[in-house]
Amino acid sequence: MRFEFYIATRVFFGRNCVKDNKAEFAKYGRRAFIVTGGRSGRLSGALDDAIGVLDELKIEHCVYDKIENNPSLECVKEGGVAARRFKADYVVGIGGGSPLDAAKAIAVLAVNCIEPVDLFKNVFENKPLPVICIPTTAGTGSEVTPYSVLTRKDMGTKKSFGNEDTFPKASFLDAGYTESMPHGVAVNTAIDALSHAVEGYLSRKSMPVSDVLAEESIRLFGECSENLLKNSFDSDARDKLLYMSMLGGMVITHTRTSIVHAMGYTLTYFKDIPHGKANGIFMKEYLKFNYEHAREKTDNILRLLKVSGIEEFGVLMDRLLHIGAHDDLRLGKEELKLFASITADNPGILNNITHAGGQDILRIMEASLKQAIM
Amino acid sequence: MRFEFYIATRVFFGRNCVKDNKAEFAKYGRRAFIVTGGRSGRLSGALDDAIGVLDELKIEHCVYDKIENNPSLECVKEGGVAARRFKADYVVGIGGGSPLDAAKAIAVLAVNCIEPVDLFKNVFENKPLPVICIPTTAGTGSEVTPYSVLTRKDMGTKKSFGNEDTFPKASFLDAGYTESMPHGVAVNTAIDALSHAVEGYLSRKSMPVSDVLAEESIRLFGECSENLLKNSFDSDARDKLLYMSMLGGMVITHTRTSIVHAMGYTLTYFKDIPHGKANGIFMKEYLKFNYEHAREKTDNILRLLKVSGIEEFGVLMDRLLHIGAHDDLRLGKEELKLFASITADNPGILNNITHAGGQDILRIMEASLKQAIM
Repeated sequence: MRFEFYIATRVFFGRNCVKDNKAEFAKYGRRAFIVTGGRSGRLSGALDDAIGVLDELKIEHCVYDKIENNPSLECVKEGGVAARRFKADYVVGIGGGSPLDAAKAIAVLAVNCIEPVDLFKNVFENKPLPVICIPTTAGTGSEVTPYSVLTRKDMGTKKSFGNEDTFPKASFLDAGYTESMPHGVAVNTAIDALSHAVEGYLSRKSMPVSDVLAEESIRLFGECSENLLKNSFDSDARDKLLYMSMLGGMVITHTRTSIVHAMGYTLTYFKDIPHGKANGIFMKEYLKFNYEHAREKTDNILRLLKVSGIEEFGVLMDRLLHIGAHDDLRLGKEELKLFASITADNPGILNNITHAGGQDILRIMEASLKQAIM
Repeated sequence: MRFEFYIATRVFFGRNCVKDNKAEFAKYGRRAFIVTGGRSGRLSGALDDAIGVLDELKIEHCVYDKIENNPSLECVKEGGVAARRFKADYVVGIGGGSPLDAAKAIAVLAVNCIEPVDLFKNVFENKPLPVICIPTTAGTGSEVTPYSVLTRKDMGTKKSFGNEDTFPKASFLDAGYTESMPHGVAVNTAIDALSHAVEGYLSRKSMPVSDVLAEESIRLFGECSENLLKNSFDSDARDKLLYMSMLGGMVITHTRTSIVHAMGYTLTYFKDIPHGKANGIFMKEYLKFNYEHAREKTDNILRLLKVSGIEEFGVLMDRLLHIGAHDDLRLGKEELKLFASITADNPGILNNITHAGGQDILRIMEASLKQAIM
């Protein structure tokens, strides 16, 4: 047995946790730079709650709401400049994975005069500003990981950076904020969380603690799959989905993601398929590919999800993926080869429990996308 | 669902983890104050390994090996003075629970001019020195908790302090160091770890993450109970026991301990019964007392331990406890009443899943100790 375990983030979980734990916002300075997107921060009530607490504490704040989906290097560069101009003491990320990941990048760039591409070197002269995360979706897990995933236009994919200093200092997980998610977003983000748990469980880097957390996360997805299918969530189901997503984050903090994410990034980059959905498209064929090398663990996954086998898992995924948009996805064979070759260059694929070569990846992608290939 | 989750310690687990992660010792300064007892640090090889790494890194160090079992306030006071005189930058605790807990107290006292009794106020003007822990037993869990348990001669029991600044910064868990434990110590410390997991699982403060970790810890104790009975440990069993103990620590970091520990402290204080054994003596009657209020969880505990019921659990405990010393424990009825009344004053009992009044505690203690009562 050999592992490292480290989660530097303090998690506050529960309804009203932002308002009930004001003191945490006073710990990191007098000027808070709020990073969010155009929509979910406001719609969910999370932004209002955070501003309310900061006002009460008389902490100066500035709302920077220009974070796009799948934020690019240019996007976080602008944010870093704005945070520096504001003389931010700390950063509050509010929203789905995009604003949370952008918040981490902005926290580095605000105090380091580097080009965003140098974020991926993971060595920063000055310690990043402290980051507080408030997720409004149940999927990213970014609130408990040090990682930030950014779009690399130069590489045609997404790539992550992060080191022990980019862990959020604190995260506030209030499932009430996830109630404003449209059905498709709820489904896609839940699938993202599932992919974290499953890829982490079938990672070469998996270890006893991450396996226990992954199993619990997968089990909770299984408990909530009917809620996801029916778009019918009681308070308990919202809690479970957010908790499941947090567990997935704790898993990939230790195991990283692997080929599902690497494949998914290309669909998101080139075809604008939402991140969770892009992952979901590949999961059945990924499980089939790994099965021989991870029978016991795969059988555990299927048992925890209460499906009879990989085929039934595929049926569940198809039903869920159908709920999101983009059923009109079409791509050519040459395009697919390009995606497979970009995927094969992603170092994340080395985390998979067994070696996946370029041809393996192409086969998984072809089998997963056969109905979309023209 | 409502909880907080925070473990600030970076865990390195595995054989040779001290030597393989030297860089961690260079992070916290140039002068290391090593806190250990007279025996296990040396016997286990942990002290030599730590000194070897510090020498290699040219970090000045001083070995303070005066930590007694169940360290008193006087003991940590002297250590604090010595650490201050040495101008320590950080503290390295090596040994069982006593040196690790003492290391945390010394780290506070080295930089705060307070009386040790003021440790229990949990507010310190100056941040404690960073602490690194290297356990040589598999039971305390102290290596991943912020808590330090000290003997209060003024109160006739043991009491704990700790806040978010007293988490060890890093802990090195090498099961090789636990191989030098005598059979009785291996058993008693394993029972201590089991009591952490069980009391945490049946705590009012238990929550989803701690429950998952507690279940895994209890399951692993069950897997290793034959090893403990037979004093036959392969490398895998040593790893599992140390891992189980770490999980127990992560559990009580969030849930605290409750009536088993509170009762056990009195036996340790007045009768010199080793801590784990003292806890083990009460566990069967404690489970019986709680059963009506926690049927499902208690049944889970019994199932995970692979025993058919509380009676069979009692038989397992009896066989294990017999291995430790102190079968000659004798105490009078008045003594027992004193112990029960001291226990009833311990705020930890409020953590139990159901209310335990003074009479309840006396009954649990009487039933547990009936063969020892004169």
